[in-house]
Amino acid sequence: MPVPKGFRFAVAGAGFRKPGRLDLGVIVSETPAIAAGVFTKNLFKAAPVLVARERILKSPHARAIVVNSGQANACTGEAGLKACRAALDMTGAALDLDPLAILPASTGVIGDQLPLDKWEAALPELLKSLGKAGPDDVAKAIMTTDTVPKCAFCEASGYQGQVRVLGMAKGAGMICPDMATMLGFVICDARVEPDLWQETLSRAVEMSFNRITVDGDTSTNDCVLGLANGASGVDVKGDVGPLAEAVTKVCQDLAYKIVADAEGGTKVMRIEVAGAKDQAQAEAAARAVGNSPLVKTALYGQDPNWGRIAAALGRSGAGFDSARVKIAIAGVVIFENGGPLDLDVDAVLGPRLTDRDILVEISLGSGPGTYVLLASDLTHEYVTINAKYRT
Amino acid sequence: MPVPKGFRFAVAGAGFRKPGRLDLGVIVSETPAIAAGVFTKNLFKAAPVLVARERILKSPHARAIVVNSGQANACTGEAGLKACRAALDMTGAALDLDPLAILPASTGVIGDQLPLDKWEAALPELLKSLGKAGPDDVAKAIMTTDTVPKCAFCEASGYQGQVRVLGMAKGAGMICPDMATMLGFVICDARVEPDLWQETLSRAVEMSFNRITVDGDTSTNDCVLGLANGASGVDVKGDVGPLAEAVTKVCQDLAYKIVADAEGGTKVMRIEVAGAKDQAQAEAAARAVGNSPLVKTALYGQDPNWGRIAAALGRSGAGFDSARVKIAIAGVVIFENGGPLDLDVDAVLGPRLTDRDILVEISLGSGPGTYVLLASDLTHEYVTINAKYRT
Repeated sequence: MPVPKGFRFAVAGAGFRKPGRLDLGVIVSETPAIAAGVFTKNLFKAAPVLVARERILKSPHARAIVVNSGQANACTGEAGLKACRAALDMTGAALDLDPLAILPASTGVIGDQLPLDKWEAALPELLKSLGKAGPDDVAKAIMTTDTVPKCAFCEASGYQGQVRVLGMAKGAGMICPDMATMLGFVICDARVEPDLWQETLSRAVEMSFNRITVDGDTSTNDCVLGLANGASGVDVKGDVGPLAEAVTKVCQDLAYKIVADAEGGTKVMRIEVAGAKDQAQAEAAARAVGNSPLVKTALYGQDPNWGRIAAALGRSGAGFDSARVKIAIAGVVIFENGGPLDLDVDAVLGPRLTDRDILVEISLGSGPGTYVLLASDLTHEYVTINAKYRT
Repeated sequence: MPVPKGFRFAVAGAGFRKPGRLDLGVIVSETPAIAAGVFTKNLFKAAPVLVARERILKSPHARAIVVNSGQANACTGEAGLKACRAALDMTGAALDLDPLAILPASTGVIGDQLPLDKWEAALPELLKSLGKAGPDDVAKAIMTTDTVPKCAFCEASGYQGQVRVLGMAKGAGMICPDMATMLGFVICDARVEPDLWQETLSRAVEMSFNRITVDGDTSTNDCVLGLANGASGVDVKGDVGPLAEAVTKVCQDLAYKIVADAEGGTKVMRIEVAGAKDQAQAEAAARAVGNSPLVKTALYGQDPNWGRIAAALGRSGAGFDSARVKIAIAGVVIFENGGPLDLDVDAVLGPRLTDRDILVEISLGSGPGTYVLLASDLTHEYVTINAKYRT
């Protein structure tokens, strides 16, 4: 995978939760990069979320992102904030970077304090790996219940010079991002103004990470951080379009990968709602379907139980006339004009539901509101993972 | 179990879904009873919900409730409404009752048409059973994925004469009632004015069935019907208090039984929220916790993973200062003043989480808003049941 110019990576195993695995990662820009961030709206914001947000507000320039898995450093109060800053100070000293130019991110168990002794002990290994590790190693170091590392790449076309956009993300559970996904990092070598970079990242997140759900639970640690270091020499000032497209593409790629790697998931349901009164109602309808445990278990069981989709729509809060609703699954219309179509759903739909990707198309009427949401299914394995995740 | 005066019961097996089980039930009042109803707010309202609501609006007097399981007669359009009325006509003719004085209710699979031939064939058996069957038989006839029939009884005390209130309910999945539970029937022998009876039932439902959740999915068929036939000779006009108390007690009893019999459920979590800005915010907080798949799986795994409760509160939409939140599980305070208490949660909480009933107390601040919600856990068995329910 190609990498934007002027970035280096490092990883180490600190043993935050389990020994013998990578759980500390760094992305370093050789020169100060324009930083942007999109953060969770959860009222219990994790310490690294508060610190990263504060630093970006103070200055749009950053040199690095430091991330750990295993401990979320969330709901840890003042002690957690102190630990977060101390970890950045140590890391800055080890890597010869201004600690205030480092943005933190954490993921893992909520409520435990960050073990600074383990952090410190891992720094020599981190330093040794700097420049040798790649973005895929960082993607590995941020995994928790993820089964695969998630990277995505896209080149922004149309500039007089090469502009590369690379993203890394993690997330498999507690996924119903509200502003951003669990953790996502986007780096690029374009030269771009701070406001424009923030806007580009925010829009891309809105069209990608904010439109997926695994379990309807929004994390305390969600954040997407973006660094644009200008190393390509290409200034996008005149036309941000191709860059925005590339960033959105990278984020959508990563968002799909998160749903495809949902905890215990076997399916990716693409819910397309149209004809709603407005986008908010289309979103409410899509989310009711995508978060319904009954729809999700039916999907897992490959059962064309479309009545559960109708029931979810009916309680979604979206307004509609039930006689004008149309529902199609995997390309087959099964409900229209207030009643089911006269077809053998098991025979027609059964074989199509063995696919991994299932399209659910819903029309609520003739309004302009549309929304697309990606959702996973709900499986035995999800229950197994989450009944045992912490202990 | 004592039964209110002047009521008779009948059941039969029509084979709507599976042969050899009771799936048709009738509750008959010997004289016209005052009828009240509370219905689902789902926009896809089932045919029996529409018909029962229409009949109660037209006249507050009814003679009987007829209920079937196996087919929900929901999302069935005009054909479903016709089938519902035809079934009532047949039943009225068989039992010598004015069909317009019969209230219908159905539960089961959404989207299939009611098989009227099976209904008709079961009527002789139904007639034969009239007066021989009891309320427990009707409670059995309305079961779908329920594992036990659910009845509750309470005598209203304080009147000069005996007033008896009896309730039957079903429900184990698609439970997040919005006005009522899946199906509930309350009968009593008090003499009471229609408006007062409706108000009594509505309030009782609000304090009971509307405060439980299994999976956050609101059914298309939710309804609670109440019949008060006056056979006790006691007129409650002067003081409805004791009757309201008894009806609420019966509904709360049934509501608890529904959560205790949740599909695959092993736990009943009682979530008590206090200190919210208002009741709506307290409710939002309680529902976010009670419907969180992560909280529910942790509960199932007997894992004191309280961080998931905090995360759910933080995304609930309720406003609060996270430094003022207090969380206690099974009587043990674990989070206060913005951070976790210094205790070994596994050692302290672990043994208490083996109980069936788990109390979760949440204080969001010093506001007047409170709410209590009963919620089940999310288990492997829930996934098994719902991945296979229809096919």
